[in-house]
Amino acid sequence: MHLAPHSKLVMIGDSVTDCGRARPVGEGLFGAIGTGYVSYVDALLASAYPERAIRVVNMGTSGHTVLDLQARWQTDVMDLRPDWLAIMIGINDVWRQFDLPRQPECHVPLDTYAETLEALVVRTQPVVAGLVLMTPFFIEPNPADAMRARMDAYGAAVHAIAAQCGLPCVDTQAAFDAVLNHIPSAAIAWDRVHPNHLGHMVLARAFLQAVDFAWAAQPAAA
Amino acid sequence: MHLAPHSKLVMIGDSVTDCGRARPVGEGLFGAIGTGYVSYVDALLASAYPERAIRVVNMGTSGHTVLDLQARWQTDVMDLRPDWLAIMIGINDVWRQFDLPRQPECHVPLDTYAETLEALVVRTQPVVAGLVLMTPFFIEPNPADAMRARMDAYGAAVHAIAAQCGLPCVDTQAAFDAVLNHIPSAAIAWDRVHPNHLGHMVLARAFLQAVDFAWAAQPAAA
Amino acid sequence: MHLAPHSKLVMIGDSVTDCGRARPVGEGLFGAIGTGYVSYVDALLASAYPERAIRVVNMGTSGHTVLDLQARWQTDVMDLRPDWLAIMIGINDVWRQFDLPRQPECHVPLDTYAETLEALVVRTQPVVAGLVLMTPFFIEPNPADAMRARMDAYGAAVHAIAAQCGLPCVDTQAAFDAVLNHIPSAAIAWDRVHPNHLGHMVLARAFLQAVDFAWAAQPAAA
Amino acid sequence: MHLAPHSKLVMIGDSVTDCGRARPVGEGLFGAIGTGYVSYVDALLASAYPERAIRVVNMGTSGHTVLDLQARWQTDVMDLRPDWLAIMIGINDVWRQFDLPRQPECHVPLDTYAETLEALVVRTQPVVAGLVLMTPFFIEPNPADAMRARMDAYGAAVHAIAAQCGLPCVDTQAAFDAVLNHIPSAAIAWDRVHPNHLGHMVLARAFLQAVDFAWAAQPAAA
Amino acid sequence: MHLAPHSKLVMIGDSVTDCGRARPVGEGLFGAIGTGYVSYVDALLASAYPERAIRVVNMGTSGHTVLDLQARWQTDVMDLRPDWLAIMIGINDVWRQFDLPRQPECHVPLDTYAETLEALVVRTQPVVAGLVLMTPFFIEPNPADAMRARMDAYGAAVHAIAAQCGLPCVDTQAAFDAVLNHIPSAAIAWDRVHPNHLGHMVLARAFLQAVDFAWAAQPAAA
Amino acid sequence: MHLAPHSKLVMIGDSVTDCGRARPVGEGLFGAIGTGYVSYVDALLASAYPERAIRVVNMGTSGHTVLDLQARWQTDVMDLRPDWLAIMIGINDVWRQFDLPRQPECHVPLDTYAETLEALVVRTQPVVAGLVLMTPFFIEPNPADAMRARMDAYGAAVHAIAAQCGLPCVDTQAAFDAVLNHIPSAAIAWDRVHPNHLGHMVLARAFLQAVDFAWAAQPAAA
Amino acid sequence: MHLAPHSKLVMIGDSVTDCGRARPVGEGLFGAIGTGYVSYVDALLASAYPERAIRVVNMGTSGHTVLDLQARWQTDVMDLRPDWLAIMIGINDVWRQFDLPRQPECHVPLDTYAETLEALVVRTQPVVAGLVLMTPFFIEPNPADAMRARMDAYGAAVHAIAAQCGLPCVDTQAAFDAVLNHIPSAAIAWDRVHPNHLGHMVLARAFLQAVDFAWAAQPAAA
Amino acid sequence: MHLAPHSKLVMIGDSVTDCGRARPVGEGLFGAIGTGYVSYVDALLASAYPERAIRVVNMGTSGHTVLDLQARWQTDVMDLRPDWLAIMIGINDVWRQFDLPRQPECHVPLDTYAETLEALVVRTQPVVAGLVLMTPFFIEPNPADAMRARMDAYGAAVHAIAAQCGLPCVDTQAAFDAVLNHIPSAAIAWDRVHPNHLGHMVLARAFLQAVDFAWAAQPAAA
Repeated sequence: MHLAPHSKLVMIGDSVTDCGRARPVGEGLFGAIGTGYVSYVDALLASAYPERAIRVVNMGTSGHTVLDLQARWQTDVMDLRPDWLAIMIGINDVWRQFDLPRQPECHVPLDTYAETLEALVVRTQPVVAGLVLMTPFFIEPNPADAMRARMDAYGAAVHAIAAQCGLPCVDTQAAFDAVLNHIPSAAIAWDRVHPNHLGHMVLARAFLQAVDFAWAAQPAAA
Repeated sequence: MHLAPHSKLVMIGDSVTDCGRARPVGEGLFGAIGTGYVSYVDALLASAYPERAIRVVNMGTSGHTVLDLQARWQTDVMDLRPDWLAIMIGINDVWRQFDLPRQPECHVPLDTYAETLEALVVRTQPVVAGLVLMTPFFIEPNPADAMRARMDAYGAAVHAIAAQCGLPCVDTQAAFDAVLNHIPSAAIAWDRVHPNHLGHMVLARAFLQAVDFAWAAQPAAA
Repeated sequence: MHLAPHSKLVMIGDSVTDCGRARPVGEGLFGAIGTGYVSYVDALLASAYPERAIRVVNMGTSGHTVLDLQARWQTDVMDLRPDWLAIMIGINDVWRQFDLPRQPECHVPLDTYAETLEALVVRTQPVVAGLVLMTPFFIEPNPADAMRARMDAYGAAVHAIAAQCGLPCVDTQAAFDAVLNHIPSAAIAWDRVHPNHLGHMVLARAFLQAVDFAWAAQPAAA
Repeated sequence: MHLAPHSKLVMIGDSVTDCGRARPVGEGLFGAIGTGYVSYVDALLASAYPERAIRVVNMGTSGHTVLDLQARWQTDVMDLRPDWLAIMIGINDVWRQFDLPRQPECHVPLDTYAETLEALVVRTQPVVAGLVLMTPFFIEPNPADAMRARMDAYGAAVHAIAAQCGLPCVDTQAAFDAVLNHIPSAAIAWDRVHPNHLGHMVLARAFLQAVDFAWAAQPAAA
Repeated sequence: MHLAPHSKLVMIGDSVTDCGRARPVGEGLFGAIGTGYVSYVDALLASAYPERAIRVVNMGTSGHTVLDLQARWQTDVMDLRPDWLAIMIGINDVWRQFDLPRQPECHVPLDTYAETLEALVVRTQPVVAGLVLMTPFFIEPNPADAMRARMDAYGAAVHAIAAQCGLPCVDTQAAFDAVLNHIPSAAIAWDRVHPNHLGHMVLARAFLQAVDFAWAAQPAAA
Repeated sequence: MHLAPHSKLVMIGDSVTDCGRARPVGEGLFGAIGTGYVSYVDALLASAYPERAIRVVNMGTSGHTVLDLQARWQTDVMDLRPDWLAIMIGINDVWRQFDLPRQPECHVPLDTYAETLEALVVRTQPVVAGLVLMTPFFIEPNPADAMRARMDAYGAAVHAIAAQCGLPCVDTQAAFDAVLNHIPSAAIAWDRVHPNHLGHMVLARAFLQAVDFAWAAQPAAA
Repeated sequence: MHLAPHSKLVMIGDSVTDCGRARPVGEGLFGAIGTGYVSYVDALLASAYPERAIRVVNMGTSGHTVLDLQARWQTDVMDLRPDWLAIMIGINDVWRQFDLPRQPECHVPLDTYAETLEALVVRTQPVVAGLVLMTPFFIEPNPADAMRARMDAYGAAVHAIAAQCGLPCVDTQAAFDAVLNHIPSAAIAWDRVHPNHLGHMVLARAFLQAVDFAWAAQPAAA
Repeated sequence: MHLAPHSKLVMIGDSVTDCGRARPVGEGLFGAIGTGYVSYVDALLASAYPERAIRVVNMGTSGHTVLDLQARWQTDVMDLRPDWLAIMIGINDVWRQFDLPRQPECHVPLDTYAETLEALVVRTQPVVAGLVLMTPFFIEPNPADAMRARMDAYGAAVHAIAAQCGLPCVDTQAAFDAVLNHIPSAAIAWDRVHPNHLGHMVLARAFLQAVDFAWAAQPAAA
């Protein structure tokens, strides 16, 4: 498993990441980490590798686009001095184009998205031990669906940035697609965006696979 | 993995199982399954084996002892016609001896506990495909601690019943002990009973190991 | 316009109809009629044809299927002695097959749906002046989408019953499809089921067209 | 219909306009547009002319008089750069004279009202494609009623400004009067000011008639 | 002043009487008497005639018509064994004809009103020391207003019953009319029915005048 | 009656005056005047002398002593430009000596009280048409009670200031004493400070007597 | 100290006893014992004599008189099988005579009080090991105060019953009087009935003195 | 008893001290002192020594460590000019090492703790009449428990500072240990930190013993 003992992993994103995390920093007592995939990642790391004492910090904020992330990058990423960083952003960048089609000022076009995300990656890669990019997703099995197609384009941009920078890229859309072969999207999220526990576990598993998490790991002997 | 496609798994217990599940039956939309280990089991089964379409039903009730389970066994277990049943009970049977020491009418002595649990097992085993017993636990590393020692005795009774009936037994105490070698109990549960997400994942992992869950399983191709 | 002066129009259905109506009867002061298409129908009828003094009663109940309607038909339809009745049901009959795929007891299969709806129609047609059937809908433009296709099948059953009984049938799906040519479904309903004000007006317009509502009607001179 | 594709229509006024709109701008998801006539206008435009993609923005604020509008005109009208603007103000200017008769500092006299409104119109007309004035109203059929007579005087001032500036003027009082021939005012608003859904539809219809809305329009083919 | 020492005065009516009184009986500690004219009557009697120790009991219920009073007359009047009884009912009997004109089952026609009220009076007069009838009212100065005219007809019925039975009749409409010469109705009640403190004091003064309350009375020396 | 038409009467004091008045100024719609004696004074003036159109403004603040009044005198009295002013203060000045005996910094000694009150009177008398001083009170019949005796001393200071400045002084203690001959203090206020409706009417009557209110006055003919 | 190891002490009374205890029985986790003197008695017994493991059960109910106690005596005392019983009742029996003087049906006269209390004592004394009577009290230092005098008469009845039955009697009035020499009643209870923490400790100390509690006792060595 | 008449005793600490005290200063009406041991100390001092009129002020703040105390020492201790000061701090300094083991920035190491506490003592001792140090505690009987052992080390530091400065030191751990011989820790605090009423009385008794409180003291004759 790639994360070294005592690593600090910050996961940043939108409402799928947020899930009620504490402010200003999503780490600590009383469910500060929120109730979504970040808490599953933390719980799986801690229960399988308790001896590594990895810190997981949730910095997701509901409604955010890549532009919102850019605006809070210094305080919410750099100042926290993470060892590892995971970024999953883009759903709202796309969704606003479909749920607020008359309000273009709320849309983040693909080129803006890609440039901004790349700039954040370039700025951060030198100071972290690991950086994991996660594509945005839409829990819709039909690739010809207009919003799914648009989301796939944004996901492709994430893949491109990852490839260019030599970073691992978690294809969350592919992870959902595999499950959607057997489970209707409505059983994971009525709105195809905010997953229930099943969908959050899909995300957690996809991320952990990218860092070579050994599912069957058992706590080291004391 | 032992659970056949379309199996219905009922998990019954106390507040550790309950975690805010819906009434009268903890299955369905809107977080009906609660937020504890049962939801993790459901999410792990569904994300790794979506093609099996296993139903997971949470029938935990906060504060319950084995006597409370007995009182609602017909409606809450038998009438639901489970294929698989998991039982984790006994924490309150023991805890009341320590937090309400002056109120013996709230205590369930060991013999009563064992007899009642055995009767429930004997009554149910013939009508289910699988029955998994889970020991109660106390998130306290010191086996000489008075309440831990008492809980271990109740756990031993569970092991004995399982052995006698030829049933798998999940040693939740052992699962916690392995983690407690590296993580203080206070980081899992201030009261050593109601775990946070880390502790619930310990329970989910212990249960799934007992049914030969393959952690790295990926959804079957459609 | 087909509804005679002083007609009483009861509209029954599920959550799309309900929209917070009063209990036990959705008619009267303080928003008793709810905030959805039924209130729009009432407001359009009253503002364009105030001299007709048509009563509109909302008897929708969130979550209901045709079986739930059947169970409350005597009290919620027959006892109210409507002159006109509108029925829009079926969304939950289909939706549960997709959002609770593992719980077949929550599903209403197509034949059960059609038979039950037909029986209600047959029972009621003789005692009302007008009966309007409305298809269920799914605010999804892709007819090959699994749930859309299923919903279309249920809608076809409504058309068949209407044809057989010589009743008007409001094709709500067609009404939405016309709008979906220009507006993404996400701008009407994140979950493609519970519409915002735009979608409710689509429904109100579709219903009123079926009763020959003259949009430009002006109140008669006193 | 007068509003060109992609027009932005801002509707400003008092509590009759406000109806719970979002702050600071009444446009967007989650019912941001409020629940009154503005939402009906939006819904009717979108369902009949979805291909025009007209934006409707609610900038009403409860309790406001024309002086309050003046104070927030820059931020709440000019900065939004509307293509079309609708103004309905004056009810509170009059009402305070009757419900707080002892507090003259809360009253807006007729000349102040007319001058202020005219100044706002003059300031705005050059920068919008369309400007619609709507009279204030009092849902009281007796023109000799003291408050109705006063409101009529304020309405006459609106007509005069519209005539002078060559603007369309929606006579909301006349629209209500036509309905009041058949429906008692108590059935629309106990206080004769804040209408229920019937009254809001009267307002929406009156406004849309002024912009040549074709009630029977159907969405253009895609 | 007509009420003898230790008299028990029950005042029954609708929401104007109710004003948040306690259930089942509106007498006692913690504002049990409500906040309307009944509390003013109680306070004026107690502060001017404390030595008489008169009990005042509020039995108003919001929304009630004379038919509702009839239904609870045994428990809410007879069983309380009042010495004096005041009845003010009829506003809802009339109002529903205007605010729910399409729902005739909610209306109490004049003849039903008069017969029912008379029957209650005849039933009760023999067992009380004093019975005061109070007309219903509508805080509208125009006698030609449709609802005011209807209310006046109901008030005339009250006068007729009082005359026939030889009972005092409080003309609340006349009391309001005198004030409406100087204060707009909107300054007393936006809906012309539920008065603020000014209107409740008008009612209290009108009632007390009917029982020869001496306003300037001072507590007797001890 | 001393208050000329269109007079503005400000009543300032502590919680007995406050009674939930609006902020920052206790005048206007929606019960802004609070629910205590100030609202009774307003209601009695308006119902008996509606043609005078007297404004009554409640500026009481719970917990305040004369020092708190001094601190807000400019904004809460002078800036409001009252024609008449009534001051009832001192209960908290005394009470804190008894309910917080160990916290002398919360006490206002008699000399401080008298000097401060006198300074406020001297400052204000020149700019108002009428100024009414009201003594503080303690609803306790026993003049030898320690707190009653202390309160009487503060009341005597009010009398002295009134005499010196030639102002009317309302002896609220005497008004309560007259009633306490017949009604136990517990029936007016459990804490002997915060009166129920009976006690507030005692205060209203005492104040109105001081301004020659004619209880039996009837509204002037229009 | 008189209470033997493992004794069960039930304390019954009114709101002074109740203080938010749990229902139906005031014993157990989560503050079930309430926050008043009963909890202090429990805490002092447990901290000074932990080895005795005495159970303390709070059965007070707000507002109750001795007649209310009589009505629930079987379930709330006898069925609990106490070893020791403490009764403090009578405050409401007296208070209602003063705060609801016009409602004699709420009063419990002295003879009724004494007879009822005596009957309860006679019924219970044979089945308990210890029975402690506690007088009612009024936190008013003046014995000539009307309510204090009345309360003293009820307290004298308690003393008489205790003397007659050979039972210890806690003179709570005397305990308060000793403190009232130094602390004003307002610093203990604004209403002279519901004490703050100081007053509850006065009650706890008075009770414990009656059972020979040794304040300086230290837990026995294990 | 060491505290002289009219002494002001400030007790500062963490959540065990806080218990819902008022802000900014925990002294005064309406339970301002909180519901924990500080209120017991106040109640015992006032009921046994009412003639001393000792002020007790609660300045505990939940979650605080010695570093937090240092940050607010000027406003929360020095500015209050206490005669006596009690300090009980250190639980959070230790607890965070166990419940947030991955977040070292939340831990206060022993040397920092000791130095900071000593500095506060040195700063304050010259200006108070009495200063009482209280050790932190962990309600766990096993001295080998990791967190108990750590807490004991912090307690030893308190003892050392007290010895060095010649101050009394309350060994709260020893006080709990004596009780834990007979009562399980679960019956005092599920989390072994936040005690119920039993545990708070243990603390109050331990503190009062240190100031030679005479438990059986009776109020001085007036």
